[in-house]
Amino acid sequence: MYRPEITVVDCTIRDGGLMNKSHFTLECVQQVYQAVCEAGVQVVELGYRNSREMFDPAHYGAWRFCDDEMIKRVVGDHKYPDTKIAVMMDAHKSSVGDLAPRDHSLIDMVRCATYVKDIDKAIKIENDAHAKGYDTAINIMSISTAPERELNECLQQIKEETHVKACYIVDSFGALYSEDIDYFVSKYQKIMPGIEVGIHAHNNQQLAFANTIEGIIRGANYLDATLYGFGRGAGNCCLELLIGFLKNPKFNLRPLMDVIASDILPLQKEIKWGYSVPYMITGILNRHPDAAIKLMSLPDSDPSKMAFRSFYDSMIDPES
Amino acid sequence: MYRPEITVVDCTIRDGGLMNKSHFTLECVQQVYQAVCEAGVQVVELGYRNSREMFDPAHYGAWRFCDDEMIKRVVGDHKYPDTKIAVMMDAHKSSVGDLAPRDHSLIDMVRCATYVKDIDKAIKIENDAHAKGYDTAINIMSISTAPERELNECLQQIKEETHVKACYIVDSFGALYSEDIDYFVSKYQKIMPGIEVGIHAHNNQQLAFANTIEGIIRGANYLDATLYGFGRGAGNCCLELLIGFLKNPKFNLRPLMDVIASDILPLQKEIKWGYSVPYMITGILNRHPDAAIKLMSLPDSDPSKMAFRSFYDSMIDPES
Repeated sequence: MYRPEITVVDCTIRDGGLMNKSHFTLECVQQVYQAVCEAGVQVVELGYRNSREMFDPAHYGAWRFCDDEMIKRVVGDHKYPDTKIAVMMDAHKSSVGDLAPRDHSLIDMVRCATYVKDIDKAIKIENDAHAKGYDTAINIMSISTAPERELNECLQQIKEETHVKACYIVDSFGALYSEDIDYFVSKYQKIMPGIEVGIHAHNNQQLAFANTIEGIIRGANYLDATLYGFGRGAGNCCLELLIGFLKNPKFNLRPLMDVIASDILPLQKEIKWGYSVPYMITGILNRHPDAAIKLMSLPDSDPSKMAFRSFYDSMIDPES
Repeated sequence: MYRPEITVVDCTIRDGGLMNKSHFTLECVQQVYQAVCEAGVQVVELGYRNSREMFDPAHYGAWRFCDDEMIKRVVGDHKYPDTKIAVMMDAHKSSVGDLAPRDHSLIDMVRCATYVKDIDKAIKIENDAHAKGYDTAINIMSISTAPERELNECLQQIKEETHVKACYIVDSFGALYSEDIDYFVSKYQKIMPGIEVGIHAHNNQQLAFANTIEGIIRGANYLDATLYGFGRGAGNCCLELLIGFLKNPKFNLRPLMDVIASDILPLQKEIKWGYSVPYMITGILNRHPDAAIKLMSLPDSDPSKMAFRSFYDSMIDPES
C-alpha cells in the first residue's frame, strides 16, 4: 500500500541551474515541465525567484528569476492541474518585493532556502509568501554543519512563526549517512509536529536516493529529486529512481525516460555533474563542494584535475 | 568504535573483468594489488580461476584464469602479509582440477560463485579448495530471483556440508532495497550461525554502497567493493566510499585515490560502467543486466541507444 501523503518535488531546473547559472532554453524548461507533470509528480520547481540586485541578469539566465511572465510561457495554454509550480527564494538573496499576489501568478508554492543563521530572513519571506496566498516550505541548507542549539531554536521558530507545509533537511554537502537522516527526521518531527519533513539530498557519497528512502521509512513526506540527478556537483536523488521505487499508481516513469534522453543527457556535453572522487572527498569531509566544483571545472589536460590525493590533503589541512 | 570483524574484499579486477573479458595489463593488476594492500584492505581478488574449456584463452585475458604463475608476477618479491589474495571460481564454469595445493600457490582464498540451482557443484569446489588448504567462501548470485524454498535448502547445505568463512548475498541485478538486505541477512544468520554474511552489491539503482552499509548495520562482515565501482554494468559498491566510511584506523584512502587516477579512470575511455537509465530499468524490473549491457554497447550514433521507453516496454513485455 502506497502512502498518499508523499509529495515528490522535481527541482531539476532549479538545482541544475546552479551548474549553468540557470541558462536553460525555454524549450528545455517546457519539456521538463511537461514530462514531470505527465509523470504524475506533484510539484515542479522551475527555478529561483531571486533578486536582480544579487544576480546580474547579464550573467544569469531567466530561471534565476522566474518572472511570472516566463512561467506563463512555460505553461502555455495548459497548466497541469495536479502538479503545483514552485520557485525557490534564497533567504539571503531575495526580497519580499519580488513576489506578486498569488492570483497574479501561476506559481503555487514558494520554497525558501536558508542557512540556520538566516532563519529570520527566511521567516520574513515565508510570512510574506503565505500572506500573498502561496503554499510555503523552508529548506534548511548545510544541515550537516548546523550547530545543534541554533538548529533547535530555528526549528522552534519555524513551528511558531510560519505556516509552512514542509520543512526540509537539506544535505548540501552530501555528508549524511542513514543514521543521520534518522536523527534529523526524528528531531524535526519532535520539534515541529504537524509540519511535514522534507528530504533534499546530494549524491557525493552515492547516498542521495538511499537517504531519501531512509527518510520515507522514518516518515518524511516531501521528497526532492532531479532528472538523472542533475544538480550541483555530485547532483541529487534521481527522480527516475524515486518514481521507480514509489508505489503510487499515478506515477509513470516513461515521460521521465523520454525527457532524460531528449533534454538532460545532451547537457552532459557541456556540464559535468554526478559522482566523482573530488565530490566524494568533500562529502566524506563534510565540506562545501565549491573546491571540488572548481577542481572539476579544470580542463582535462590539467594534471591537477586528477591529483586527488593532494586535493584531499589540502581539504584536510589547508596549511599543508 | 570500529568492528574488527569487518573484512573488506576488493574485487576490481575480477568484477571489472566482466566488462573487458579480463584483459588487463600486468602493470594495471600490479598497481591495483599494491594500492589495495597499502590501503589496508584485507582481501584482494585478482580474477577468476575458471576453466580453459569454458573460456577460450584466445578471447579472454589472463585474469579469467589467474594461473599461479601470473599471481606470482603480480606479487613480485613482496607479498603484503596483511592482505589475502583471492580468486573466484564459478560453480558451473570451473573444475576442481584447476586448483593446486595451497602451498604451491600464493592464493589464500577461493570464492565460489553459484546460482542456487548449482549449489552441489559449488559445494564440490568448496570442499576441494578447503581440503587443499584454502580459505573459502560461497557467493550466491542472482539472489533477488532465487526461489525461497530452494534458497533455504541451499543455505542449509552450506551450513552442513562446507567450511566456508563467509556466504554472500549477491545482488547481481542491483534490484534489492534496504529492507531486502535486512531480510536476507537475517535469513543467512538464522540458517547459518557461525558463518559470516557477505554483501556483494550492484549499483543499478545507486544503492550498492547504501545496501552495503545496511548489511553492516545488520551484522554482515564480508564486504565486496571495487575501485570507482568498476564492475559489470552499473558497477559495484565503490571501494573508496566504503573505506571512507569505515572507522578502522588501518585503512588509508590515499593509495586508492592514486590508483583510481592512474589506472581506473583511464579505462573509461573504452569501457562504460556505472549508473545509466538502461541499468536502472533492469534493476527496477529485477532482471539480468545483459540486455542493458547490449544496449549500452551500441555506438552513440545509434538512436536506439537512447530509446529508453521502448527498451523499458520490451523488458516488461517481450511480446510487444
